[in-house]
Amino acid sequence: MTSTLRLHYAPDNASLCVRLALEMVSVPYTTVLVDRAARAQKSASYTALNPNGLIPTLETSKGVIFETGAILLWVADQTPGTLFPKSDAQDRGVALTWLFWLSNTLHPTLRMLFYPEQYARDPIAIANMTRDRLQQFLTLVDGVWPDVGKTPVLQCYLAPMLRWSALYGGDTRWFRLSDYPALAAFAHEFEDHPAARKAARAEGLGPTPFSAPIAPNPPEGSAT
Amino acid sequence: MTSTLRLHYAPDNASLCVRLALEMVSVPYTTVLVDRAARAQKSASYTALNPNGLIPTLETSKGVIFETGAILLWVADQTPGTLFPKSDAQDRGVALTWLFWLSNTLHPTLRMLFYPEQYARDPIAIANMTRDRLQQFLTLVDGVWPDVGKTPVLQCYLAPMLRWSALYGGDTRWFRLSDYPALAAFAHEFEDHPAARKAARAEGLGPTPFSAPIAPNPPEGSAT
Repeated sequence: MTSTLRLHYAPDNASLCVRLALEMVSVPYTTVLVDRAARAQKSASYTALNPNGLIPTLETSKGVIFETGAILLWVADQTPGTLFPKSDAQDRGVALTWLFWLSNTLHPTLRMLFYPEQYARDPIAIANMTRDRLQQFLTLVDGVWPDVGKTPVLQCYLAPMLRWSALYGGDTRWFRLSDYPALAAFAHEFEDHPAARKAARAEGLGPTPFSAPIAPNPPEGSAT
Repeated sequence: MTSTLRLHYAPDNASLCVRLALEMVSVPYTTVLVDRAARAQKSASYTALNPNGLIPTLETSKGVIFETGAILLWVADQTPGTLFPKSDAQDRGVALTWLFWLSNTLHPTLRMLFYPEQYARDPIAIANMTRDRLQQFLTLVDGVWPDVGKTPVLQCYLAPMLRWSALYGGDTRWFRLSDYPALAAFAHEFEDHPAARKAARAEGLGPTPFSAPIAPNPPEGSAT
């Protein structure tokens, strides 16, 4: 990989997962702020890169990549065996299983909590069921985390979702990190990782961004 | 890969995507019916393999893999460059982008249409918005399909979703394949592929399973 990597990001958005992974492998990259306050993610110039109008997008020498899970796996495949089991590794299949699960189950369900108006005329109609499903999903991943949680890509994807659960979507009392002991231990440990420290500084996430997050105070842009 | 591959399937379920991919590479595999009529996907023996209680699950010599996208990519990685661009290929990133998008955007939205009671107390509250989003998503993928639609893994994932759109979720008038010219051309072409013919026979999907599907008449089990 070269310095041509350009990460289109907004503070504390899903781009944080990608930033964490890039910091872990210390590849050169630059960031381009997507100004959410101005809805820049829906602008013509941004949707020309990513027609979904979602963050993140990664520009590479091999084209434009989007979808958080896709970018994470692509970055991992550029640095084989560092962030994710190699193609022929014994544990590749299980790691893929949980990467896709984070991407297609936990992450979309959090989006339903954060943006209910995109899913239902009456957002109240889905709020309680969404929270119930999130609790079930977090219990499930807490149970498997001792087995699968050593994979850096999965760490980079899950840690921000723990943070967002504690901060966004209105009433956050449904989420108590201590209800998920394996995830709580991970959150404490992970936020001391140099990559996490660097990402937290870059996006203004404070000293305990995953175990006890507070609202971000980013040097540029806004989280919502 | 060896004959130890065991695909837990139900006719016309997401396991169809995996069956199509396995047939494309002609690897030996056996199938195990998950009896949906008896809710076997929620049984203790099945959830011991896949705690989500969802179909498909693939048993391999390297462990149990689930999530359709994960299985597809794992199978592809066992046969490098056949079903999906190799790790170092120029077009790997774009293919990953659309694989994750199918997995985390189109597929979960179809699930909201088919199982609205899992998402909202009042299923009516989400039905129209779900259909609107599906139309937007299909328009989006129709636009990029000429560029990305040559990748077999993406074909195996998308073709069943076109079929399900035409058949399931109650009122199907929201979906007209002809509204999506690139997808319509693909559906016609793909159902003549030997792998598609074989999968259609195995699951009783009829002669035009993707371009003009009719309710399945499977030799064993049931689709719902």
